[in-house]
Amino acid sequence: MASAAEASGYGAAAPLERPPVRVDLRSDTLTRPTAAMRRAVAEAEVGDDVYAEDPTTNALEARVAELLGHEAGLFTPSGSLANVLGVRLLVEPGEELLCDARAHVVRAELGAHAVTSGVTTRTWDAPRGLLDDDAVGRVTAMMTPDAGPHLVSTAAVAVEDTHNFGGGTVQPLAALHRLHEQTSAAGVALHLDGARLWNAAVALGGEHAGGWQGVVREVGGMVATASVCLSKGLGAPVGSVLVSSAENIARARTWRKRTGAGMRQTGLLAAAGLHALDHHVERLADDHARARRLARAAAAARPGCTDPDAVDTNIVVLDVDDARALVLAAAERGVALSALGPRTARLVTHLDVDDEGTDLAASVLAELLSR
Amino acid sequence: MASAAEASGYGAAAPLERPPVRVDLRSDTLTRPTAAMRRAVAEAEVGDDVYAEDPTTNALEARVAELLGHEAGLFTPSGSLANVLGVRLLVEPGEELLCDARAHVVRAELGAHAVTSGVTTRTWDAPRGLLDDDAVGRVTAMMTPDAGPHLVSTAAVAVEDTHNFGGGTVQPLAALHRLHEQTSAAGVALHLDGARLWNAAVALGGEHAGGWQGVVREVGGMVATASVCLSKGLGAPVGSVLVSSAENIARARTWRKRTGAGMRQTGLLAAAGLHALDHHVERLADDHARARRLARAAAAARPGCTDPDAVDTNIVVLDVDDARALVLAAAERGVALSALGPRTARLVTHLDVDDEGTDLAASVLAELLSR
Amino acid sequence: MASAAEASGYGAAAPLERPPVRVDLRSDTLTRPTAAMRRAVAEAEVGDDVYAEDPTTNALEARVAELLGHEAGLFTPSGSLANVLGVRLLVEPGEELLCDARAHVVRAELGAHAVTSGVTTRTWDAPRGLLDDDAVGRVTAMMTPDAGPHLVSTAAVAVEDTHNFGGGTVQPLAALHRLHEQTSAAGVALHLDGARLWNAAVALGGEHAGGWQGVVREVGGMVATASVCLSKGLGAPVGSVLVSSAENIARARTWRKRTGAGMRQTGLLAAAGLHALDHHVERLADDHARARRLARAAAAARPGCTDPDAVDTNIVVLDVDDARALVLAAAERGVALSALGPRTARLVTHLDVDDEGTDLAASVLAELLSR
Amino acid sequence: MASAAEASGYGAAAPLERPPVRVDLRSDTLTRPTAAMRRAVAEAEVGDDVYAEDPTTNALEARVAELLGHEAGLFTPSGSLANVLGVRLLVEPGEELLCDARAHVVRAELGAHAVTSGVTTRTWDAPRGLLDDDAVGRVTAMMTPDAGPHLVSTAAVAVEDTHNFGGGTVQPLAALHRLHEQTSAAGVALHLDGARLWNAAVALGGEHAGGWQGVVREVGGMVATASVCLSKGLGAPVGSVLVSSAENIARARTWRKRTGAGMRQTGLLAAAGLHALDHHVERLADDHARARRLARAAAAARPGCTDPDAVDTNIVVLDVDDARALVLAAAERGVALSALGPRTARLVTHLDVDDEGTDLAASVLAELLSR
Repeated sequence: MASAAEASGYGAAAPLERPPVRVDLRSDTLTRPTAAMRRAVAEAEVGDDVYAEDPTTNALEARVAELLGHEAGLFTPSGSLANVLGVRLLVEPGEELLCDARAHVVRAELGAHAVTSGVTTRTWDAPRGLLDDDAVGRVTAMMTPDAGPHLVSTAAVAVEDTHNFGGGTVQPLAALHRLHEQTSAAGVALHLDGARLWNAAVALGGEHAGGWQGVVREVGGMVATASVCLSKGLGAPVGSVLVSSAENIARARTWRKRTGAGMRQTGLLAAAGLHALDHHVERLADDHARARRLARAAAAARPGCTDPDAVDTNIVVLDVDDARALVLAAAERGVALSALGPRTARLVTHLDVDDEGTDLAASVLAELLSR
Repeated sequence: MASAAEASGYGAAAPLERPPVRVDLRSDTLTRPTAAMRRAVAEAEVGDDVYAEDPTTNALEARVAELLGHEAGLFTPSGSLANVLGVRLLVEPGEELLCDARAHVVRAELGAHAVTSGVTTRTWDAPRGLLDDDAVGRVTAMMTPDAGPHLVSTAAVAVEDTHNFGGGTVQPLAALHRLHEQTSAAGVALHLDGARLWNAAVALGGEHAGGWQGVVREVGGMVATASVCLSKGLGAPVGSVLVSSAENIARARTWRKRTGAGMRQTGLLAAAGLHALDHHVERLADDHARARRLARAAAAARPGCTDPDAVDTNIVVLDVDDARALVLAAAERGVALSALGPRTARLVTHLDVDDEGTDLAASVLAELLSR
Repeated sequence: MASAAEASGYGAAAPLERPPVRVDLRSDTLTRPTAAMRRAVAEAEVGDDVYAEDPTTNALEARVAELLGHEAGLFTPSGSLANVLGVRLLVEPGEELLCDARAHVVRAELGAHAVTSGVTTRTWDAPRGLLDDDAVGRVTAMMTPDAGPHLVSTAAVAVEDTHNFGGGTVQPLAALHRLHEQTSAAGVALHLDGARLWNAAVALGGEHAGGWQGVVREVGGMVATASVCLSKGLGAPVGSVLVSSAENIARARTWRKRTGAGMRQTGLLAAAGLHALDHHVERLADDHARARRLARAAAAARPGCTDPDAVDTNIVVLDVDDARALVLAAAERGVALSALGPRTARLVTHLDVDDEGTDLAASVLAELLSR
Repeated sequence: MASAAEASGYGAAAPLERPPVRVDLRSDTLTRPTAAMRRAVAEAEVGDDVYAEDPTTNALEARVAELLGHEAGLFTPSGSLANVLGVRLLVEPGEELLCDARAHVVRAELGAHAVTSGVTTRTWDAPRGLLDDDAVGRVTAMMTPDAGPHLVSTAAVAVEDTHNFGGGTVQPLAALHRLHEQTSAAGVALHLDGARLWNAAVALGGEHAGGWQGVVREVGGMVATASVCLSKGLGAPVGSVLVSSAENIARARTWRKRTGAGMRQTGLLAAAGLHALDHHVERLADDHARARRLARAAAAARPGCTDPDAVDTNIVVLDVDDARALVLAAAERGVALSALGPRTARLVTHLDVDDEGTDLAASVLAELLSR
């Protein structure tokens, strides 16, 4: 069994062994299906999705496409694959994708875009993963679309919203619009890694005339391809959906089979996704409140280790002297965290973290960080 | 929605529209989970399989590995991916895999081995996909292992058992042993595409001291890597398992993530797979009997269109004047077939084809082929 | 220094060490530039060919394109690369190229088509590499163009003329026309590996109204892309030329740079190529006569080891008990051969093999094969 | 014929048409072989380099390897390919190479590392391409070697010396040593893109106890693989040399053939390279002096458009209002420049730029920039 250390890609020891984990803040991918979701799974109508005959999967794909204002959707076994297929639609082998240096597409997909698609990447530095006006300026300066036979041609830019390794950062809509104007003018396409777009939409939805649905649709309107995940904050067991034009999705369907991700009776999984869209979006606000509460507890115990005001959604990043030691000590107290680097720990709230778990984690952080 | 025509990769029109399909013989991938299987799914214990923490998936992987006598297993979303990963373990980019010209790995995986792995292929011609002594001789003559810096090096040979496009052909154990001796002596590895190994095992199990389990273990003992499928004859909704050494499977786990096939709470799917292994292997004999019955009906109506004695398992291939017309006419009568080529139709029996469906299909074949 | 054994990709020891090689029949790639060719090289007008500003290279490309009746040409450092680029123009990643199982593109290019282009291959068996009517029928039966989302799509067929590992076999024009009709009707493109097209043209030119030029143009007219080599029989030191439409060649130019084969003042090499086209084509008839003479000597010494009537051009393949022993014994006598397999030796005549060398080789073969 | 505009990857019109180019400062790749070099070419002893039997090529490879203190060398048709092969030796498919965002390996090799090798890249921002202590710190912070199954593993860092798009910048030896310490400690390898290492060595050689040779050897001692180019400042027509351990170079030789870059009688080209090493290294100081003179002329005419003190070697980068207009106006006066961007022009001095050409270019720059 992989330890949290392996899970984090870093050297911390496993928090999963004795004592038992009482609250698991390592990742929002850890959520287990609820009883209601399990019922939806058990009762799902299914067919063979390789033949596009699974009615539940077809319904999920149509539902997500409609939410983002795109023509069609495609169910994938992972967010990584939805990103790989989305980028492949926009970037031919030997062309270039630009993204920030801590983007999931270049850090956490194991070089898939190079291996499967022959896509080359250059990256910009973005504190907190934030796409602000300054970052937009730097991206724009890097682009060399249609660069001719000697320089690499920039075909697409990827944006991650919320930004995972940046700490759940919500991308400002105004900056996204500015980037969209610049890339459109240059003939460069945008791909959205919206694994946690639902979190961004809920975070911004209170201020948006269209609510969270309005945010999703506004962001969707700016991008040629987008991936959104069902198995992180939404709590479904498996899967993401890629959206784009109908023509693009037809190509992506062939490429999905080529990557070995053509599955059969996926309606079981899609039913969980539909259930999650019906029941688990708006409750993300609770995850966000709990994350801020944990950040405040941490900052109170050790001023400067995190900025509670910068906790936009459900992820808290802590700067500590020894992330590994913190992870181990918290595990001793039943709280599982992850180490992203030697001095960086991460906490993620999600469907399986309730107020009681948050109380426990807050008190453990208070104890350990005040030392 | 893709038609059966598209599903078959051929130009026949869809049999799925009016009238309703009463028996669907297009593929054994079409099986829907039984009520008991759905219960197993709904009650499965789950965890995050990307962290290798899903207990049901871990149990399934161990169970399948044990059946084939290998150290470890890895759950994959498709048989194609299990093949891609298995071959990737054995063949480095620029090296060669040999297989027969109608093998699933070169005909039905959309060039994945070239695209993802840089693996090049040469093929031999095998009537019915059969690996007999003659075929073993030709394969052996083609191999150029460690061919130095100028000629491509043969790193592996792939065997498909049963052989799908060959008509569900069971590979003779004696010929497999001969191939294994030759490849072992030359330092060339064997990969088994055992998508339907369960069918082969049941077909041979009556004559084998170890029963079907003995066949599985004997074949498993000859190959460095093997894929077996849960979602074809066994009737699980999704998934295959790759088996090999523990070291190989650790590498394959990383490559699985790289191909975008790292999934989260896969225990839901693995539970179906375990249920299928417990309940759906031995009943494959019924599918085989029904397939032979259909072949006899076809041969009686039109002598020479198929050889009932050559129907080893659950697949019947028919030589007809116009496969497309046959598919359409059968669909009018509620029987779905598929066209593999202009003069080749295919019928596949499976979990969702009972005696009543077989009766209907036999009478429709009798009517249409006797014209 | 690599031995002939390594060069042949086989286990025979090196014939290059004591005593000195007096006639080297390992390959026609071994030719050294003549004094006149060296003068042409030394006086070549040059420019930077990465900027397409090398006048001699531009002249060579235009000259070869015109000979084959194509719009444009592209100089490449090797025949392998001309094949890789030519196939890449016709076959997208994940699509399929068909060729015979001993074609240079699948045996001697180290998987480049898979690695660089993601092209997958299936092969047919062709005795002597010959594309006769029977072979055309088998190729046609293998093709599955536009096969939809489930089966691999055949995008191109490659033909090798003359066929190297087949023994310098000249492809019959009538069969080529038949293949061209079939592939055209199916929307499948043809690529010609014409590394030794000059030899084929000279062999057929006596019977052709247009002479060797007529043969080159007739074959060129059937294929979408073709590679021809300057550094084999023609005796130039380096290079091949790929021909196709102007649009294709512009794409190939970008891909040539992507493969790292953009060179600067290539006029030095192109001048040798132009010189070879002016002076070394028609003399290939001498090579052919010498090869047949060697085949007759071998067959006289050991009946059945080769068929002199099947020696179409400059390559002789010998079936012997122990190719390695033959290579070593010949080397002791100053004659370098190569071993293509445990029982297969190969002799190739070329610009640097004169009558005296042929006499020596014939007498050595007579001695060694009559034992 | 490609224009300088295309060559620059940018939209400026061609300076090569009327009037004739009197001094060509677009690139040092434009050098034509001298009369003495042509003699060396014409008299070169040759063999078949695919069999490693070309004595002149073997001598060149050994000579360059010895200069950099490595075991072996390999001749390649381009600097791009030497970089691709060098990186391929260090980075497996799906692993990561780090480099700066304007490095030749990510900007000017058309995604070759992704396409051919499946290598993924992240980049850091480096003003002038300079690897100073600050840059070393940022690179080190980006590295994630052996990152486990979830995050991409950093396998190598590439350094470019001198830095082309940075303006011929020489990398400080002290910072290189610091980087080497950090990467060695982390198990990350270094690749040197030393296309213009000769320029760096001559620029630093006056202050180095070992002269330029000492610099070359000191830099060579820090890197696992290095490419150096013969066809830029050194004035040879074609080729680069990759150096590394003997074992690595044997692997690179196979990969060179796989990329289609196995050439035959390369002694003709290698002879030019050896001549260049004998005669054209130390004279690079003249190119550097002329470049500084041009920078001073430009800065005098338009203060701030360039910093003459930052001109380390033979490249001058100018910030101007309209690079395209400058390129066109200079072309009208017989001076060819290139545009690297809308506001960036570049001048490169080389073997074919003498004092007279420098005078002309200086006066044209003075005229055009003082407007």
